[in-house]
Amino acid sequence: MAELKDLTKRSENYSQWYNELVVKADLAEQSAVRGCMVIKPYGYAIWEKMQRILDDMFKATGHSNAYFPLLIPKSYLSREADHVEGFAKECAVVTHYRLKNSADGKGVVVDPAAKLEEEMIIRPTSETIIWSTYKNWIQSYRDLPILCNQWANVLRWEMRTRLFLRTAEFLWQEGHTAHATREEAETEANTMLHVYNEFANKYMAVPVVMGVKSANERFAGALETYTIEGLMQDGKALQCGTSHFLGQNFAKAFDVQFINKENKPEYVWATSWGVSTRLMGALIMTHSDDNGLVLPPALAPIQVVIVPIYKNNEQLAVIDSKVNVLIDELKALGISVKYDNADNRRPGFKFADYELKGVPVRLVLGARDIENGTIEVMRRDTLEKITRPIEGITEFVKALLDEIQLNIYHKALKMREENTRTVDTYEEFKQEIEKGGFVLAHWDGTPETEELIKAETKATIRCIPLAGDKTPGVCMVTGKPSAQRVLFARAY
Amino acid sequence: MAELKDLTKRSENYSQWYNELVVKADLAEQSAVRGCMVIKPYGYAIWEKMQRILDDMFKATGHSNAYFPLLIPKSYLSREADHVEGFAKECAVVTHYRLKNSADGKGVVVDPAAKLEEEMIIRPTSETIIWSTYKNWIQSYRDLPILCNQWANVLRWEMRTRLFLRTAEFLWQEGHTAHATREEAETEANTMLHVYNEFANKYMAVPVVMGVKSANERFAGALETYTIEGLMQDGKALQCGTSHFLGQNFAKAFDVQFINKENKPEYVWATSWGVSTRLMGALIMTHSDDNGLVLPPALAPIQVVIVPIYKNNEQLAVIDSKVNVLIDELKALGISVKYDNADNRRPGFKFADYELKGVPVRLVLGARDIENGTIEVMRRDTLEKITRPIEGITEFVKALLDEIQLNIYHKALKMREENTRTVDTYEEFKQEIEKGGFVLAHWDGTPETEELIKAETKATIRCIPLAGDKTPGVCMVTGKPSAQRVLFARAY
Repeated sequence: MAELKDLTKRSENYSQWYNELVVKADLAEQSAVRGCMVIKPYGYAIWEKMQRILDDMFKATGHSNAYFPLLIPKSYLSREADHVEGFAKECAVVTHYRLKNSADGKGVVVDPAAKLEEEMIIRPTSETIIWSTYKNWIQSYRDLPILCNQWANVLRWEMRTRLFLRTAEFLWQEGHTAHATREEAETEANTMLHVYNEFANKYMAVPVVMGVKSANERFAGALETYTIEGLMQDGKALQCGTSHFLGQNFAKAFDVQFINKENKPEYVWATSWGVSTRLMGALIMTHSDDNGLVLPPALAPIQVVIVPIYKNNEQLAVIDSKVNVLIDELKALGISVKYDNADNRRPGFKFADYELKGVPVRLVLGARDIENGTIEVMRRDTLEKITRPIEGITEFVKALLDEIQLNIYHKALKMREENTRTVDTYEEFKQEIEKGGFVLAHWDGTPETEELIKAETKATIRCIPLAGDKTPGVCMVTGKPSAQRVLFARAY
Repeated sequence: MAELKDLTKRSENYSQWYNELVVKADLAEQSAVRGCMVIKPYGYAIWEKMQRILDDMFKATGHSNAYFPLLIPKSYLSREADHVEGFAKECAVVTHYRLKNSADGKGVVVDPAAKLEEEMIIRPTSETIIWSTYKNWIQSYRDLPILCNQWANVLRWEMRTRLFLRTAEFLWQEGHTAHATREEAETEANTMLHVYNEFANKYMAVPVVMGVKSANERFAGALETYTIEGLMQDGKALQCGTSHFLGQNFAKAFDVQFINKENKPEYVWATSWGVSTRLMGALIMTHSDDNGLVLPPALAPIQVVIVPIYKNNEQLAVIDSKVNVLIDELKALGISVKYDNADNRRPGFKFADYELKGVPVRLVLGARDIENGTIEVMRRDTLEKITRPIEGITEFVKALLDEIQLNIYHKALKMREENTRTVDTYEEFKQEIEKGGFVLAHWDGTPETEELIKAETKATIRCIPLAGDKTPGVCMVTGKPSAQRVLFARAY
């Protein structure tokens, strides 16, 4: 129980609670390399579940995986004017390709003779290297569309890092598609936004708002950036995934033309879209509590843990045999289950540990349960404990897992709705934004007004929501016309 | 058919045949970055199938996936003496962490102010960064074993590269395990060798020889390196996977000790093991022919392709409806199937293309087949065509896929057996090694003799086989005692 008691409460210090939880729940830790994390087996198992589900969704929408180089020639970054202008320059730069033994024989030094003619950048994102490749793949409209995704590591030399939320190296997927028409590319960007939205809502149980980014927040080189935005328990927004309509910008930068059906050359239309290990941060911050992680059953590496209570080996043997039948039945229903009958940890310690790790359902079987034909069931989301007949327990557990998945989604949705407020004046806005949460307000559509609001309140436009109230109005700051209310928040 | 006719024959130039095939079959291509490849969707789909099967095998043997940083502080490489001494120094070196706009405003340059205090290396392999992490994970024997694997990209700045066989960046998995006893670590290294062996034989249909590496060929830092070695069609050997017993070398280098059951500190025992995208090269070179790829059904992204032959849309509509039923039946048996009724390519072109891509079974359905209740079946491994009743065709195809899997394995095994020869004298050895293939000969066990043989014949000891003839003898070069014959070959 020691570890659990050490966990800072959310109400005391949300940020510290998060940092501690990621480490104590064995999800990830800082590495010896500045800003780079080690994703530990338990954390990686959650990420793998996310990957598998997303990958199936990408394939169901016609995409294939491929792999492009980690390194990008420095000159590629400056090919697309907006991309180089807008994209952060904090990249890892490879300048040499060889080490040699040091003169004292005790270590290695960089061999000055092995200097690269052109420096290479570790990919911060792959539009440039991929579009330089697509140039060779595309000649005619028959070669289109190209619907590729890659699962990869990328690196951005961030100065202030936090596990999962902002790390120098992170894991992600990046889709890069090429199309013959503007309409098809716009549809693709929209389709992938909806894939992300479905994934966040249905599997992560994170209710997100779909919308369009303002020009200020748009991806460097995109004509339009779509986003899903989540609201964390501390009232700050977290961007969970983006899908970009890139127009013909990258095709022009890398001279990628195709012969259309009318036999005329035309530049190719593009999209790119990605989600990253940042989703782990969204998952943790949306559901977890002062006892530790709360995981949606759809992504929990262990959905059910079974703990025996016994006084001697004879009792344990009886429980073991009962549990083995139960495990087979649960597995037959597709439920992942762990039986923890290790004798070097006391039940109370195990309980606290699996609560910390967010295992959705705990079953406890003792000698008395065996006599009574019962079993104790604890659900992690509400911490409620009940005793049930062991007869029919597997179906009960299956239904309970579904219920937990829905319950934590609705709980998060309720929290978001209670923390989404509509204001009409800038004074109101300033008051409400201090409370945290989403604030819906009218804005005149200019970058200048957006920057002023950000400078004065630290709030940014998270998105122009696709759904909801579309009534026009006047900007709360300038009084100029506004097409619809937009979603503001302070954000991670 | 144009593309197919362009494929160089193996007998003319094996190396050129390989290079052309990889590109023409859409598996991979050179990128704009020296020595780094782009793995195209069709090639990546094969790699994904390999990954999925291997990953399941790793998990079935108790391993979990995790993720460690891409970058390694330069000083880490010199912590383990043999590792720094023996491991190639050709690494990509990161020296800076920021770019800035160039003075002329047209591009970007490296910001000299953003120089790293200590240079970072892009991981060529991860023993050093992982053991620096394990130090924090291990205190007591209760923390052991640690059985981690990671799927990752690694980079070694190779001067002469070939797609899949030797590239600067490549994809692989690297297992890194930590154990309380020497015996347990040795067993682990052996277990993973057998996992690789089973994977190569059963799924890749590549018959490999399991053995131990000589000291010269051992991994830098290992006490023992186990290997699986394949024999390619040109008579050259290809190392397909290695498993290393690392002793306590890395534990000592990174000071990783644990308190054992007797309450005494002890250094941890280690293994590491890996296979890479090089397996793609082994797969291609073992089975493919002058018509293109031959893929084992277990790894083929498309196991069955169906091509319609029709004169008009009415005929096509009838065929379509028949094929749709067939597709459902094949999918129900777990068979991946593609129906190519595209009207912009003629059947003959499609036939050649799917042969080039190694699809194991082709079904052709024409208007006359519909009348006769028949279907044409072509198997890629032998190129045999037969006409079968369409009734019961799915079961026939399922059995045929199994037969193809076995047939190409046995064909490759026969080729290897016919090209494995036993010699007693160095004169014989020199003659036989010229012919290509494996040569079994006695060797005195010294690095000096091994180096002499390599210098004079370009042959290396691929392994000391675990199975087979264990009769002692005398070294063919020095006449000194030899424990058993060892396996020589010229190798990739």
